[in-house]
Amino acid sequence: MTGDGPPFRRIAIAGIGLIGGSIALGVRNRWPAAAVVGIDRPAVLAHAIGSGAIDRGLASITELDDADLVVLAAPVRQNARLLGELPARIVERALLTDVGGTKRDIVNAARRLPPGATFVGGHPIGGAERGGFGFARPDLFKNRPWILTPAVATADAALAGLRRFVEGLGARPTVMDAAEHDTVMAFVSHLPQLTASALMDTVGGAVAGGGLAVAGRGLVDTTRLASSPPSVWRDICAVNADAISGALDQLIDRLNDLRADLQRGETLEAVFGGAARWRSELMKDRD
Amino acid sequence: MTGDGPPFRRIAIAGIGLIGGSIALGVRNRWPAAAVVGIDRPAVLAHAIGSGAIDRGLASITELDDADLVVLAAPVRQNARLLGELPARIVERALLTDVGGTKRDIVNAARRLPPGATFVGGHPIGGAERGGFGFARPDLFKNRPWILTPAVATADAALAGLRRFVEGLGARPTVMDAAEHDTVMAFVSHLPQLTASALMDTVGGAVAGGGLAVAGRGLVDTTRLASSPPSVWRDICAVNADAISGALDQLIDRLNDLRADLQRGETLEAVFGGAARWRSELMKDRD
Repeated sequence: MTGDGPPFRRIAIAGIGLIGGSIALGVRNRWPAAAVVGIDRPAVLAHAIGSGAIDRGLASITELDDADLVVLAAPVRQNARLLGELPARIVERALLTDVGGTKRDIVNAARRLPPGATFVGGHPIGGAERGGFGFARPDLFKNRPWILTPAVATADAALAGLRRFVEGLGARPTVMDAAEHDTVMAFVSHLPQLTASALMDTVGGAVAGGGLAVAGRGLVDTTRLASSPPSVWRDICAVNADAISGALDQLIDRLNDLRADLQRGETLEAVFGGAARWRSELMKDRD
Repeated sequence: MTGDGPPFRRIAIAGIGLIGGSIALGVRNRWPAAAVVGIDRPAVLAHAIGSGAIDRGLASITELDDADLVVLAAPVRQNARLLGELPARIVERALLTDVGGTKRDIVNAARRLPPGATFVGGHPIGGAERGGFGFARPDLFKNRPWILTPAVATADAALAGLRRFVEGLGARPTVMDAAEHDTVMAFVSHLPQLTASALMDTVGGAVAGGGLAVAGRGLVDTTRLASSPPSVWRDICAVNADAISGALDQLIDRLNDLRADLQRGETLEAVFGGAARWRSELMKDRD
């Protein structure tokens, strides 16, 4: 970190939901002098202005007149569209980033921007069950990874500025290629979501209410993600379908192996042992 | 409940691990006048006597000389063997029960006991990650379901006594047929375990340590069960293989449906919507 001043003085955030709202609140805490403009529906903007998260609101990104940093924090397919709607003067001077859960799509959309535009994809690793500004909090990113996916041509200064910004919000920045990000996320994020939903739908359909009443904490934890807002996942699944299909194939293979072992009376040791080892690795350095 | 005296005055518990140890501690709290004998390895018995959970210990169930209630709390296949090793005088006078996660096997084993024997299967719904007496606690069963699977011929008084016993430990008894129990558990307990292990093994194998470091809370929760002790699950999977295979088939079908929807560009709405509804049902009346 160099100095304590804000890396960006005028910040625009499109989409004041859980993530966008938490960024706004985090900026307020860390750099009270920075000006924050929010872009969202009027009711959301009123709520965010009322609670001091943003200074002013705009109904459309086309109205944005000044910014050093633009953060696209809408659902992923909307972010790609918002990028195309940004006024030319903003594209020329601001650093553009996003917080979407997939990266190839937005990085591709950014390639269609005029020369001179600087876009660095971003993905703060969240994990909150419930979306919306009502659940936003300034410490949402504390000690969490925040993946940055610069283009090959991204200037070092732009990446350094964004890195300092996300560190200021408490996150741990990690640089990754967009395609690698999407493959990793297909496994560590999108596959668990699909698995939790498929498991909950299967179990509920098979045993209904009476059986669910005698379920223990195992089912409760394994299906927590099944209450995630579908709107977010509809987009992510559509945009990352190829990588997610590959991950699903691998899981289905593993489940078929378990099924075959069960029917042959084998011990399932290979999958259980491997799983226990990876689980220890996953929990390393976590609270 | 009738009266406040212990429903059983002399209680023998075979296997002083998480469940057996928690039963012993719960009895101590609720009915201090009851005598508790533990059967386990010498080191475990010394620990349990030292912490006041049991009055005395035996190395083998064949040495048991008196009891009103015998609780089999070893892994499920060991419980079936212990049932056959019980001295005839105990089989004649004591109520016999177990705490295993599968019920058809032990109920079948109990059918081979001499006439006059009274066995009522039991299954306290736990959910603790880690086994062993070191993690036992008197309130482990508080407000949790405890399934009882009486035989058709079980006397009402025997079932009532066992019901009063588990209520005294804070649990909520539910009567169920042994076969129904095993099917329900295949879905609400065994399938989540296999799913969590298969998911963790798949994800770890695909992304290794670097990818796991950027995983969020979704993967952490969905795979919590992957650190369960394999010894417990080896038995349960072997004994309930048919019901678990059926449950696995249904999950694999659902995952294949999701995969087909993804590739056709469909919205996954059916599975996600169903899952969200069943998840609300699951969480009803839980803390």
